[in-house]
Parts: sequence; C-alpha cells; structure tokens
Amino acid sequence: MNTLQPCPLFINGEWVTVKSGATTPVHNPSDGAVIAETPLCEADVIDQAVAAAAAAFPRWSETPPVDRARLLFRLKNMLEDHFEELAQGVTQEHGKTLTEARGDVRRGLENIEFACGIPSLLMGQSLENVARGIDCDSIRQPLGVVAGIAPFNFPAMVPLWMWPLAIACGNTFVLKPSEKVPLSTIRITEFARQAGLPPGVLNVVHGGREAVDAILKHPTVKAISFVGSTKIAQYIQSTGIAHGKRVQAAGGAKNSVVVMPDADVGPTATGILEAAFGCAGERCMAGSTAIVVGKAAETVLPQLVDAVSKLRVGPTDRDPRAQMGAVITRQHADRVCQLITQAAGQGAKPLTDGRDLNVVGVPNGFYVGPTILDRVEPGMVTMQEEVFGPVLNVARVESLDAAIELANASPYGNGAAIFTRSGQAAREFRHRSAAGMVGINIGVPAPLAFFPFSGRHASFFGDLHLQGRDGVAFFTQQKVTTTRWFGAGEGSIWSDK
Amino acid sequence: MNTLQPCPLFINGEWVTVKSGATTPVHNPSDGAVIAETPLCEADVIDQAVAAAAAAFPRWSETPPVDRARLLFRLKNMLEDHFEELAQGVTQEHGKTLTEARGDVRRGLENIEFACGIPSLLMGQSLENVARGIDCDSIRQPLGVVAGIAPFNFPAMVPLWMWPLAIACGNTFVLKPSEKVPLSTIRITEFARQAGLPPGVLNVVHGGREAVDAILKHPTVKAISFVGSTKIAQYIQSTGIAHGKRVQAAGGAKNSVVVMPDADVGPTATGILEAAFGCAGERCMAGSTAIVVGKAAETVLPQLVDAVSKLRVGPTDRDPRAQMGAVITRQHADRVCQLITQAAGQGAKPLTDGRDLNVVGVPNGFYVGPTILDRVEPGMVTMQEEVFGPVLNVARVESLDAAIELANASPYGNGAAIFTRSGQAAREFRHRSAAGMVGINIGVPAPLAFFPFSGRHASFFGDLHLQGRDGVAFFTQQKVTTTRWFGAGEGSIWSDK
Amino acid sequence: MNTLQPCPLFINGEWVTVKSGATTPVHNPSDGAVIAETPLCEADVIDQAVAAAAAAFPRWSETPPVDRARLLFRLKNMLEDHFEELAQGVTQEHGKTLTEARGDVRRGLENIEFACGIPSLLMGQSLENVARGIDCDSIRQPLGVVAGIAPFNFPAMVPLWMWPLAIACGNTFVLKPSEKVPLSTIRITEFARQAGLPPGVLNVVHGGREAVDAILKHPTVKAISFVGSTKIAQYIQSTGIAHGKRVQAAGGAKNSVVVMPDADVGPTATGILEAAFGCAGERCMAGSTAIVVGKAAETVLPQLVDAVSKLRVGPTDRDPRAQMGAVITRQHADRVCQLITQAAGQGAKPLTDGRDLNVVGVPNGFYVGPTILDRVEPGMVTMQEEVFGPVLNVARVESLDAAIELANASPYGNGAAIFTRSGQAAREFRHRSAAGMVGINIGVPAPLAFFPFSGRHASFFGDLHLQGRDGVAFFTQQKVTTTRWFGAGEGSIWSDK
Amino acid sequence: MNTLQPCPLFINGEWVTVKSGATTPVHNPSDGAVIAETPLCEADVIDQAVAAAAAAFPRWSETPPVDRARLLFRLKNMLEDHFEELAQGVTQEHGKTLTEARGDVRRGLENIEFACGIPSLLMGQSLENVARGIDCDSIRQPLGVVAGIAPFNFPAMVPLWMWPLAIACGNTFVLKPSEKVPLSTIRITEFARQAGLPPGVLNVVHGGREAVDAILKHPTVKAISFVGSTKIAQYIQSTGIAHGKRVQAAGGAKNSVVVMPDADVGPTATGILEAAFGCAGERCMAGSTAIVVGKAAETVLPQLVDAVSKLRVGPTDRDPRAQMGAVITRQHADRVCQLITQAAGQGAKPLTDGRDLNVVGVPNGFYVGPTILDRVEPGMVTMQEEVFGPVLNVARVESLDAAIELANASPYGNGAAIFTRSGQAAREFRHRSAAGMVGINIGVPAPLAFFPFSGRHASFFGDLHLQGRDGVAFFTQQKVTTTRWFGAGEGSIWSDK
Repeated sequence: MNTLQPCPLFINGEWVTVKSGATTPVHNPSDGAVIAETPLCEADVIDQAVAAAAAAFPRWSETPPVDRARLLFRLKNMLEDHFEELAQGVTQEHGKTLTEARGDVRRGLENIEFACGIPSLLMGQSLENVARGIDCDSIRQPLGVVAGIAPFNFPAMVPLWMWPLAIACGNTFVLKPSEKVPLSTIRITEFARQAGLPPGVLNVVHGGREAVDAILKHPTVKAISFVGSTKIAQYIQSTGIAHGKRVQAAGGAKNSVVVMPDADVGPTATGILEAAFGCAGERCMAGSTAIVVGKAAETVLPQLVDAVSKLRVGPTDRDPRAQMGAVITRQHADRVCQLITQAAGQGAKPLTDGRDLNVVGVPNGFYVGPTILDRVEPGMVTMQEEVFGPVLNVARVESLDAAIELANASPYGNGAAIFTRSGQAAREFRHRSAAGMVGINIGVPAPLAFFPFSGRHASFFGDLHLQGRDGVAFFTQQKVTTTRWFGAGEGSIWSDK
Repeated sequence: MNTLQPCPLFINGEWVTVKSGATTPVHNPSDGAVIAETPLCEADVIDQAVAAAAAAFPRWSETPPVDRARLLFRLKNMLEDHFEELAQGVTQEHGKTLTEARGDVRRGLENIEFACGIPSLLMGQSLENVARGIDCDSIRQPLGVVAGIAPFNFPAMVPLWMWPLAIACGNTFVLKPSEKVPLSTIRITEFARQAGLPPGVLNVVHGGREAVDAILKHPTVKAISFVGSTKIAQYIQSTGIAHGKRVQAAGGAKNSVVVMPDADVGPTATGILEAAFGCAGERCMAGSTAIVVGKAAETVLPQLVDAVSKLRVGPTDRDPRAQMGAVITRQHADRVCQLITQAAGQGAKPLTDGRDLNVVGVPNGFYVGPTILDRVEPGMVTMQEEVFGPVLNVARVESLDAAIELANASPYGNGAAIFTRSGQAAREFRHRSAAGMVGINIGVPAPLAFFPFSGRHASFFGDLHLQGRDGVAFFTQQKVTTTRWFGAGEGSIWSDK
Repeated sequence: MNTLQPCPLFINGEWVTVKSGATTPVHNPSDGAVIAETPLCEADVIDQAVAAAAAAFPRWSETPPVDRARLLFRLKNMLEDHFEELAQGVTQEHGKTLTEARGDVRRGLENIEFACGIPSLLMGQSLENVARGIDCDSIRQPLGVVAGIAPFNFPAMVPLWMWPLAIACGNTFVLKPSEKVPLSTIRITEFARQAGLPPGVLNVVHGGREAVDAILKHPTVKAISFVGSTKIAQYIQSTGIAHGKRVQAAGGAKNSVVVMPDADVGPTATGILEAAFGCAGERCMAGSTAIVVGKAAETVLPQLVDAVSKLRVGPTDRDPRAQMGAVITRQHADRVCQLITQAAGQGAKPLTDGRDLNVVGVPNGFYVGPTILDRVEPGMVTMQEEVFGPVLNVARVESLDAAIELANASPYGNGAAIFTRSGQAAREFRHRSAAGMVGINIGVPAPLAFFPFSGRHASFFGDLHLQGRDGVAFFTQQKVTTTRWFGAGEGSIWSDK
Repeated sequence: MNTLQPCPLFINGEWVTVKSGATTPVHNPSDGAVIAETPLCEADVIDQAVAAAAAAFPRWSETPPVDRARLLFRLKNMLEDHFEELAQGVTQEHGKTLTEARGDVRRGLENIEFACGIPSLLMGQSLENVARGIDCDSIRQPLGVVAGIAPFNFPAMVPLWMWPLAIACGNTFVLKPSEKVPLSTIRITEFARQAGLPPGVLNVVHGGREAVDAILKHPTVKAISFVGSTKIAQYIQSTGIAHGKRVQAAGGAKNSVVVMPDADVGPTATGILEAAFGCAGERCMAGSTAIVVGKAAETVLPQLVDAVSKLRVGPTDRDPRAQMGAVITRQHADRVCQLITQAAGQGAKPLTDGRDLNVVGVPNGFYVGPTILDRVEPGMVTMQEEVFGPVLNVARVESLDAAIELANASPYGNGAAIFTRSGQAAREFRHRSAAGMVGINIGVPAPLAFFPFSGRHASFFGDLHLQGRDGVAFFTQQKVTTTRWFGAGEGSIWSDK
C-alpha cells in the first residue's frame, strides 16, 4: 500500500499537521489510488489562520511595494527551478496531461510576473489646483486580511490568480485550495516560504463547506476571491456581502464555439478539439458547444470527429503519449456519463461516445472518453447544465445571427469563440456576444494575467474581476486626499525667524 | 392657499401626471408650506419606466460615445443658462442657502462636464502579440438598464452623479429622486428633454419604499446607484445583489475634523464652522466631530464658538443674509433636538444651543440652531449616531495618535480632516486615516467629479464608487477579445486570385 | 470690385489692424477672386504677441483646469451656434465643398470637446511608500508660451488641434494660421473672445517665412506645434530644437490604399474615391496611391473609374451640387497638372484626366479635374512627390506581401489603408504597415481628437504627436516629487503643546 | 605590475577583443592604478554593432512581450546572485564607496524590475464605435535599432536605465558605456548573455567622440538615449535630430537644497551632507547648493560643518570605513580644486577645505576632501558651473520667496529640495520650483524606475524622459488603427453557404 503524502496547514509561517478530525481523500485520477488525506478544518483553524494574517498585516502593508514585489520575484525563480516537479504534481493529483499541467503552472507563473509590476499598477492619480491652491490625489491602500477559495481544476494556476496579487497590494492572505487537489498549493507555499515569505502573510487551510463558511463569516476577512461552480459562487457572494466583505466569485460556464462556413477546416477542427477536450473538459473556459453554421457541418465537423476518435486517453502520470486524462473523481465520471445518456435519450446523436471507455492497466482510473453529441437542442440537458467533462455539443444553425442568438441564450457568460476568415463576422461576433471573454479563431480565449478575466452573467458575481488591473482594484481601496495649506500671511511658522 | 407645483413622472420622453394614488408632501422648509405632492408609485409604474429604458437601450448603446457626449454638452448649456432658477428651486425645496444651492447645482454640473469626456474615459486596452500572432484587447460596454435612487440633501447634485455618466456609458436610466425633493430633478429632466434626450434614455419615477423595492427586484435592471442612509444602503446592496445587480450604495457618515495645536486659528475656525453647519449639517461629508488636540482647545475652540454664536439662521428663500437654513422636515428638526438633549443628559456640554431657536416671521419653518457640544465621549448618542443636522461634537485629546485613534474608531468611513501647519502630521493622518476621503486644512473634502467618492466601511457598500473613473467602471462591463487569424498557407481567401 | 474682408491680428485680447507693410492675397479658389490681404508680419509683431502671451501666463496657468475647460465649453457652444457660417467661410477661403467644410469645422470642434476633459487628462500619478515613509507623485505643469503654425488645407480644424488643448493645459498661445486661409481663424478667435478668453491667452499673428522664423527663434516660446510640408516640418524641428523648444511637426504624406481581390467592390470604390479626391486631394491623409492586388484590377478599378468620371467639379460656394472644388491657388493647380503630364511622360496611363477642365462660369477658378493614373511605377514623379491634388496613382501587384512592400517603400508614414473582407489580411497589414495611421476598409483613417495622430518617418518630426493624450504630454512638463517628513521624535512642532 | 582587465566589445552575441588601435586607460581612482585599457572604436565597429542589432530586430520584435520580459527576469536573478561582485567592480572602476556602489547596482536592478512589467506598460488603447460600426485602437510598436551612451558616474545604473526597457519594448540595442568605466557594463552584459540574450539584441561598443558620432549619424539607428554633460547633451540632441532620430539627452545640473528655519536640525544636516558629498558629488542629482533661510544658518549650518569635517575620505576598495572616495580622474580632481580656489578668490568662505587632502597609503589616488563654501553669490564660479565634485555652496537668504527665486535662477532644472516641517512651505516650493525632480526633506530626489526622471531646461533635451512610462513611450511608436467591415448585405463571404 501507498504511503500517503502529507497535507499540512500553513499558519503563521509554520507547517502544521492536523492530527485528528475528519478528512477527505485526494486521489490520483489516473489509477484511482488515494495519495493523501485532506483534513476538513473547522472554524477554530480558520480563526488561527486569520489571526496570523491579521497579526502580519501592519508590518506587511507598510513594507514598500517594491520590496513586496521582490518576494514574488524570488518565488517565481523557485517555481521555475522546480517547474517540472510542480507539473508532475499537478498531473498526479488532477489527472491532466503533463503538457496541460505545465500550462497550469505556467499560467500561474504569469500571474506572479504580473504582480511583480505592482509599483506601477498600484499608482493612484494626482492633480494640482483642483481649485486655487488646492491639490487632490488618490492612492490605493490594501484592505487587510483577504481570502481565496480555489477549485480543483487548475491546482496551480487558480490559487496563483489570487494570493500573489493580493499580497503584492499589501494584504495578508488565507488560502483554501480545493480539498481534492491540495498538494500543489502545499508545494508552492513551501517554495514561497523558502523565498522569504514573512510569517502570516500567506496562510493555507484545508477543508470543505465548514471551512468555507468560517471564512465567509469571519469578521476580520475583508474580501473573498472565489472560483468554482455557479451555485456556490452565488452563495459565496451573498454570504460574503452579508458579512461586509468584497467578493469576486467566478462560477460555471457553457461556452459556445461558432464555426462559420468559411473557417479554415484543419486549424478549426484542431481548435475545437482542444477547446472541448483539453483538461478533459474540466475548464470554465472549455468550449463545450460547437455551433456550426451552414456548410461548416460538412467540412469542419467530419474532420473534428475523425480527430476526436483518435484521441489517446490514458494515465497521464505514466503514459507520455496520453492526450487526455481522467476526470477528477469516480462520482464525476459517473455523472458525466449519465448526462451523456440523458442527452442521448433526449435525441442527441453521439458521433463519438466515451461512456464505456476501458483504459488498459488502470481499471480504477476515472476515465470518460471524448464524446461528441450532434444535433443537440437548447433544451437538452447537456445544453442546460455545465457538464465539466469531455463532452461537446454540436448544434447546427443557418446563419451568424442564429449562432449569436443561440450562444447568447445561455445564462452563463464566460467565453465565446468564433472560427472564421471574415473580419466582419469576427467584429459582429465580438460586438454582440454576451460573453466577457471572446475568441477569434481561438477556442479557449483564456484569461491573460494582465487582462481581467471578464466573465459575465451566471459566470461571475461581482464588479471587479480576477487578474489584471481589476485584480489590483479588487484588492485595494482608494483614498482621495484634498489638500490646502494656509498662507504665510496667516501666521506661518517661518515668518518669525 | 398655495398652488402646488406639479410633480409628474417622466417615462419614454413624456411627462406623465399621476392622477390618483398615495402621495407625500414636499415642503418648503423655510416656512413649512407644502409646495407639491409627490406620488408614491408602485411596481406597475416602475415596470413602465424600465420597459421604456429597455426599449431605448439597443439604439442608445449603439450611438457612438462622442454623440452621447454631445447630448450632455447641450444639457450643460441649458443648466448654465438656467443656473439661478435651478439654485432657487433647490433652496425652495431643501431649505439650504442660495449660496449652498448654487454649489449643489455647480457640483452637479461638474459631473456632466466629466461625463462629456466619455470617449477618453471609456477606452479599453490593447496589446499585440500576447503570443506569436495573437492579439488581445479589452473594451467597455454598457450594462443595459440601470437605476439611481437619490437622497434629499443634494437635490441637484446627487442625481447628477448618477445618470449623466451612466448614459454617457451607453446605458439607459431609471431615476428615483427623493420624494422629499423631487422638483429639482423634474426641472433638470425637462432641460435634458429640450437638449434632445431620446425617449426612454432617462426616465424619472417617484415614490418611497415600494418604488425602491420594485426597482431593486426588477429583473431587467442591471445596476443600482444609491445614496442615502447606512441602513438603507446595506439593504439596497443585499437586495440588489440577491437580484443579480451591481450595486454601489453610499450610506451615512460621522466625519471627524482633527485640530492640531499648530493649526492656523482663524481659517481653522472658519473651516470647521463650514464643515459642521454648512447645509445645516445635512451632508454625508459634514464634519460633525471636532477632535481638538492639546492647546487647540484654547485657541481654535473659543474663536469657533464665537463665530457660531453669530451665525444668522433664517428663511433662505427670502432672507439673503441668512447663513444657515432650516432642516428638511419638522420630524427631522425634532429628532435633532432630541439627540442634543440626550447627549446633554449624557454629559455633553452645549457651548451653543440650537434647540429653542425662533426665527422671526416663519413660525412653521423647520429650524434648529447651530449647536456645539463640548466634552463629548465616544459612547454618547451624538457620537454613535449620524445626526445629519447642525450639531458639532467636540472631543478633546492630547496627541495626534489619540486623535487618529478616536477618528478611526467610527464604524463609518466617508471623510476625515485635519487642520495643521505640519507636513508630518498631515502625512501621518492621511496615511493612517480609516476614511476614504481625507482633507488637509479642508473641513469637507468633497468628492470631485473626476475622482471617486471613496467612502469606506459603513459609509459605502460596493467596490466601485460613484464619480470619477470608478463610476465609468461601475456602469460598464469589460469584454476581452483574443484574436488569431490563420495564415494564407492554410487556404486564405485571396491566394486564389 | 469686391470689398476685402479684414485680416487683423489678435494680440492681448484686442483686434489690431495692420496699416502698412507687405501683404499676400487670400483668394476664393472657386472663382479666383481676392477676398482679403494677409499682412506679412515681422519679428516686432511676433514679439508683441509673445509678450502678451507671456504676461498672461502666470494668471492663466494658475487658473484651475476645470475653469480653463469651461472657457472651451463656452467656445464650443459659440462655434456650434455659428456652425454653418463657419463652414461657409471655410468653403470660401479654401474651395472645398460645404460638406467637407462642415467636416473641417466638426473635427475642430471634437478637439475642443477633447480638451474639455482636461481635468482627467492632466492627472499625474501617485504612490505611497516608495520607501518606508516616503511618498512620490508626478504632476503635469504647463510649459509657458507655446506657438502653432498651421497649413492651408484645413482652415478650421488644424489650428483647433493645437491651441485649445495647449491652453487647456495652462499654456498661453501664439497662433499663426496659413496666410492663404487666415479668415476662419479670425472668426473662431472672435468667438473665443466673446466666450471670455482672457487677454493674451490666445494671440493670432499673420505672415510667412519671416513670421515663422521669428516664432522659431523667440527665446520665450517653449514649444512649437506645426503642420505643413515635410521640408518645412524638418526645418521647423531643427530650428526649433536649436532654439531650445519642444517641437511636433507634421509633414507631407503619400498614403497607399491596398485593394485586395476579396474587397467589397462598391464600398471599396467609393472609399477610394473619397480618399483620393476628397478636399481635392489636399489632405495629408489623402489616399493618393491605390495598390490593387490581383483581380481587384478587374473588379474594383472599373467601378472606381466610372464613379470618378462622373464627379461634378465646380464652385463650391455657389453650386450646391459640386462634389469637388478647386485647389488652393492657380500656381498649385498648374503644378498638379505638370506633375500629371510628367507622370504620363514616364509611362503612367491616365484613366481619367483632369488637366483641361473648364468649369462653366468661373473661368478664373483654380480647377483640376480628378485624375487616375494607372500602371504607375515606384520611380514615377507622382509616386515620389506629394501631389496634394486630385490625382490617384494606381499600381498593380500580385500579392498582399508585394502590396505591403510597395506601400512601406515610401519615405512617408502618415497613413495606409486596406480594403478586404479578410481578417487575416487586415491583421497582417496593420501589423506590418510602416504608417502610423492604419485604415481597415477606411480610405482615410483620419485622426480622432482622442487618439494621437501618429504619423511616422518623413510625415512627422518629433516624439509626441498632435491630438489625444500625446497632445497633453506635449504641452506639459512633468514634475516628480518625493516627500518625506521627519517624525515627531525628532522634534516636531506639535509635541510641545 | 598589474594585469589589465580585458575590455572587449560585445557584438552579435560574441565577445570581441580589439587587437589594435587607440585606447584610453581605466583607473582605479582609489590608488590611481590603470586597471584596463578601453579601445576607442571607430565607425567600422559601430557599423558592425548596428548591423548585428538590425539583423536581430525582426525576430526580437516579433517575440511576444511576455517572453522578452522573461529574459529580464532571468537577468535580474543573475545580477542578484552576483550583487556583491558587481558592487565591488563599481567601486574599483569608479571610486565610490561599497555602500554607494550597492545603491548603483540596486537602482539599476529596479529598472530591470520595471521593464519586467512590459506587458502592462506596452498596452495601447481601444474604443468601439468611434462612429457607427467603426472601431479604433492604438498599439505601441518598437522603433528598431536604438542606442545608449552612458556617463562615468553610475557605471551600473545608467546603462540599465536604457537598454533593458528598450529591449523589453522590442528594440535591439547598441550601448556605449563611458570609456572611463566600461567594466561594469561588460560584467552585466556577460550575465545577460548567460541569461539567454539572443545574439544582436544588445551590443556593446567602446570609445569616445568618434564612436559617439558614428552612432549619432548612423542611418539605421532610430533613437539615442544619452546621459552626460549639458554641452554634449545638446550636441547629441541637435546631431541626432538632424539625422532623423529620437533623442532623450540628460545633461548637467546645479541642484539647490533650501533649508527653512523650521527644519529638523539633525536629519537636515545629514540629508544635506549626503546630497552634497555622496558619490563625491559626482551625481547629476547632487545637492550642490544649500540655500539657508534666516536662522537656519545658525542651527543647521554648524551641525553640517561639524559632520562634514569628520567625514572619512579614503580608498573605498580597501578601507571599509571610508565614507567618501576619490573622484574619477586626476584631471577632474585638479579641476575641482581649481574651482574651489577660484570661488575663494571671488569671496566664498571655505568652512571646510578639501584641496590639500592627503590620504595615507594611496598617494596617487584622485582625492578631493569635502568642501563647504559659505556666503557664495550667484555670480561665483561654483554657482555658475557644475563642479561635479565634493563641493557645497552655501547661500544665505531671508525668505522662502528669495530661496525659490535663487534656486530657479539656475539655467539647469534637474532637482531641487527643501527641508522644512511646514506643509505650506513644501507645497509652495513644489509648485513653484523650476526643477523637474523635487525633494521634500530629501536631499536627492533620485529618479525611481517607475516614475520619469523629469529634468528640465539645461538638464534635459527632449520630450520623453528616461525611466517610467516616459521611457516606454520613448522606445516605441504608436500605431492607430481605424477599422470598419462592410456588412453581409454587401456580399459577404458566408451568405452563400
């Protein structure tokens, strides 16, 4: 039997092993083995973490931004020095391919790089003589203790969207990674410690609903950054707001990829394949519905089906040729298969079917094969619910207008993409899309560290998005100062020398 | 008996007179006369207004920003052409002096001027080659139908914080002015109509709690801008959020003015007088507590008391020498007097006492004289509650540290000011103040149109403030587009010429 | 015989008639009549104007930006109130159609609108704690007396690119309009005077080379904004720099319009027609060379020739159906015809020929008909020199690469446009074009007030362009302040209360 | 006898040893020993370097900004790993103390850190619907081959102001460090090479006037960044401009430090000492004139003289207690002494006199002791010329107004500082100072990487300063694109599916 990897807390600069209490298993999805047990902390632990963060705040917030950035510069180095190790860890606890895991770490690193520019990003504005002899300026100050709650699908990246920028702004942080994938955060935190992270500036706790609630209701926590499902995101927002916090809460998605008849066939098919089946579809920016316009159904679709049917699914931790890995848990794999079955029952036509996939040698892995459901209709279950697995809906329409209408009918609004050669189609789509992240000939218009991740509608709850300058605005509060000095004639101190 | 002024709704570009249903009176506080009756609209009227705004949105949002701005340029002209008339109207329905009323209108105008710069303010960001051959940019798009709910204390200014910027951003608007002072909004809206406001772009409704709730819960309304009391602000936020809206909700305040021993005596006394008694204290930026440090109690305080005791209180609509007017209602006047009485009972020492003021010739005016309560303690009622009247607490401390501590102990966080000659005291105060708006030798660091009104804590609920670039961010949603075009080698359309 | 229109100077708020000295005639190009005589001022007059500007600077620069902007708001109103009159004046002194003249005035107005936003545009940046307890900020301050020298082709617009923004920034100004079209500036200046322009803030002088040199060498003038020909622009830059000034000098151009085989035929032909023959080609953004790719020569070109051959050329001041007017002078008309003759001699094939145009009823007008020269080669004179008249070169190439290469071979770099339906062609063109202003399906990518007019190479001399935020940067100098205050422990003034 | 350190060129990624031709010696100022010989390259070498840079440009400019930044991240690491070695190298070739040398390196590093944020800094702006259906955006593109010419006084820092930001923007670079201190640049360049600098992206050449001229006149070089003396800066600007380049040229300075009567005595004396004698006064931000106001002459001045007279001058490369080192050359030491003598002859009163300093054990070091000249007058030589050595003028005035007037009378405009406790004096000084960099209680308001180094007048020639966003603007050209797509109705490609 396997030795379990440790899953300690990190509070006030110390690794703390939880000796008792409830836990939940961490699996290697490739073979189903339990590799760690995540402690399910309760309010007392959250209290300790918040207290440590609160104690660290005065000193850290007074540390000049350039010096705060330097910690992140050092952290970046350490993560780069251990890049492959981190990627392998991501693969192990999440199941995605090593290539995808490298992307996961790299995107995280880009957020650290962005946060390294905090002296420029933190600047307020300044104006002389707003009235005669009166000046005005604004500065950005940190909020205090802030918290992040991360999902399982990007074990490295999503936490790194949150805390590096938050602490660059001068806040101190409590991070709760997903209880399903806590190990990458533990590794990264250890590197931050070695990079010189002062005690209490970043604290890591583990747990589920109870831990989340304790964070949400803690009076000392000033802001919550959350990424997860829509239902929870909405709960996070309303509960956090009710407890006087700022909240940015990213939820689920149902992103459409429109394929115009003039689209380049080869790269379009490849683009959709990557959008739908990359990370086994466990992405809030996954392209989960292809809306094929007119004759694109005859050109792009066959090539796509052909490519998908050749996709190699396998244990990404041992098979370097695997192009797609398992999903996160057995339950999730089962749910994905049920949704496929349900949609098929509603009339969807499976062009490829991943329900009965057997991957040789890993009978207990959580596999679902890549599935394309053709001729889906708006009311079918895979169009209504976020599947978060390797399932691509195909809907057929006859015009760009119909495609935009169908895409915009979704209650979600993370992303939308179009494949076309036409400048006009691209402009129309961009202008009229109801999604916040638009891709032109890019299936996954993934957020870049230096632009905001601008999801809308049921995909985002809040005003200020994660990443980019929005992230800086979220983690700071502005202070506006208006200044006047009375003149020498009114008795100034140096006139009587 | 007086003829009542009409108080119609403005829906879809038409003035609509409400013929039946409940109303609430509008008074001239200077003499207590009823000058209008505000209809208390219910959900059906809100529905009509929202429907008009929704119908106007597609066309207005597609109107280029430069053209939207030109409407505001014209509106500015019209308001300037009728400046005195507007100021007199403010004085009549609110009671403030004509000088104060002019400031009310002028500050409103500044917000229109700011919104005229929308083409520059609306710009997103653009970057080539985020990866090889891939470009990324962001744009700001309007939200849709948005709404504003305004308080009674600045009949002209506060609504003008809201809707001009919102419509400049391409939204359409439903405005509910205070039912106590609806007439200034009616005048300004008529000028907007004459300036060419397209039907439905701005709609004005009237009412109280029921109207507010109908707005808050209306599924078509995407954002709410609110200014009022803390209790309502918090309700607005939680209800608006629960109904999927953006919310910026400014609440009450309790702003301290710190007086250092080195402060210039004359201008400091004048500054505090203006901060505490300007607009009869009915300002969320009023300086309602003077914290005098050390010997400032012996220098500034006597001069302040002397000046306050000479303040001429009177009917601002007919007495051009009146320096302070009545408060908004009889009930409010009574409440202010009760709070003074209560504080005195708790040990506060009235240095001036406005409770028994009789203003000759206007026995029914809602007057309270300017009141200075010395030696207040943190627990006293006038320190705990927002009085929103002409009452100044005086607290005495022995150091700047103690002054900052006392000022920061407030649950509110709108403003804080310091009077001093010392650069170091000013910097310490600015850096450490828990308030979002800081004044150095300025008792009321009032928000400027081009900076955000950055209240904090119980004074503001939301992330993005009213006015300035925050206002633009509040009334828009970003869209980030990532663009790639496949190369000619892959079959581009012009290679087969 | 005609009464001449007066052509006075404007110095220190007064209109000054020059009674003696050399003059140069202002013509109505439509009929060749002399309508005014422009005085050719010498250094003594420049001295007076600069002295007036210098005297006005201290007070104007201390006027708060919001108040400076309000002058421009009022000026905008006045120009709008007299919009048609101004447009007619432009037509009369320049010859362009009334529609074009309206555009001339409107674009000028947009620059005033942009300058109205100066409080936001002037803001510097602010950062706390650049080191512990040390703050830093930047502000933008005006330069002092600055000057503008304008060309004849946009009598209203180009001067309005310059002085409204300059004075919004707090500078005072000396403007020398083109001696060929001084009258529009005189009208606009009179409206500025009526709008409340303080004496000395804007001064208008007239003249030619001698006046230019006096401005260039005047020690009090801190910056020069120039628009004209390349040769003079270069002279302005080197002379201005040698005399310690900032210089932004826009020169000539030779802008290409690439037509891809997939371009929409109708709108492309119209777009090129407007680009080449609008304002009779007297535009630094004129599209003077069409580079037709492949089969576009068979689709777009015939339709273009057809449309051009039907263009109605005539006296724009009396013939409302005229679609193109005369050029600025007889000499210029002759030069344009010579260039056509020369190019034809070099092998260019005239598809339409404007050399022998007779416009009925106006035998002395300065007319040249719209001329299309097909099959031009890079070495021909109309490809080498800026014609600044209604002459369109047509070059034929076989690929987008060849088109870009040909367009980029120009020593100029103002503008370049492409007509295509292809997103990829547009992106390639934009990315690789050597011009600063790029049009996609827009023949004249004219500068917008709120973006910089980013000409390059021989089309612009300087770093900071006219218009947009570059214009603000050009007319201001930054001041960076680093501030520390020593602590109370070191003997601060309030510790010994 | 010493072995000389090598002084190779770096061209196209290779170290190139110059075998013949003229050289100039590099000294260790602490003992006068020759430690290297700098080759004096001529135009042929410059040609090679420029050619290498030109060849590298297409590929480097197409490298995404994030990837360009990553080179700088790695360079930062390497410089930090070799921080002490670099500082010792600076001390050896320049003579400054190790503490000062560390500051030299650290400030250089901060510029690399700033340049690491290039993805955010490079962003242009984007606006939809500038007219109906027309969009506009701006991007920043690199210039091509650009060059830097650096002075001797900050061997590490000044070159790092230039090339990291330039290459982050996508340019390729030719750097000519000072021939007096080429060795630090060689070390840093070697680290850049090891960090992965592609061949040709940075090239290092050596030489004097001839090399400078070859750079200035090279047609391929698009921009010159220069720091040096005013006379040369002016020459650089006019020559560079004449050859069609952008130029930013920082020159000499004469910075005043105003001491108000209320200044904190101890820290003020220390601040002035550091400002005047740090780096032996060889700083363009040195505080070389103290303007003492009123009784400050009796409080601050004696303490300053006392501290200065105790300053330990010595060989900074071997005496860790040395507080001030030698100046750069024997000739420079002699010139400084002559200026002191001359000023004394004009009536200045030496309070400390550094002319006859003998430092034990290093008879050939280039030492001048710290010298305070009291009662200087504006016309004296040390007030007229930049001494660039350890000489402090003391002028006495009776008011702040007189102090500002005296400070502003300088033809230079780099920096100015004030020591005071008064907020009002600080604001007046900041507002009215003619210098671009202002210090409040900071003797040397040194430029920060993320703010521009805003020298004015004879201290800077150009519009866009070194460092900060100005630096980005200097090293890039904007391109503005206006885009329209014709609608489907006009024959779009996908309507015929």
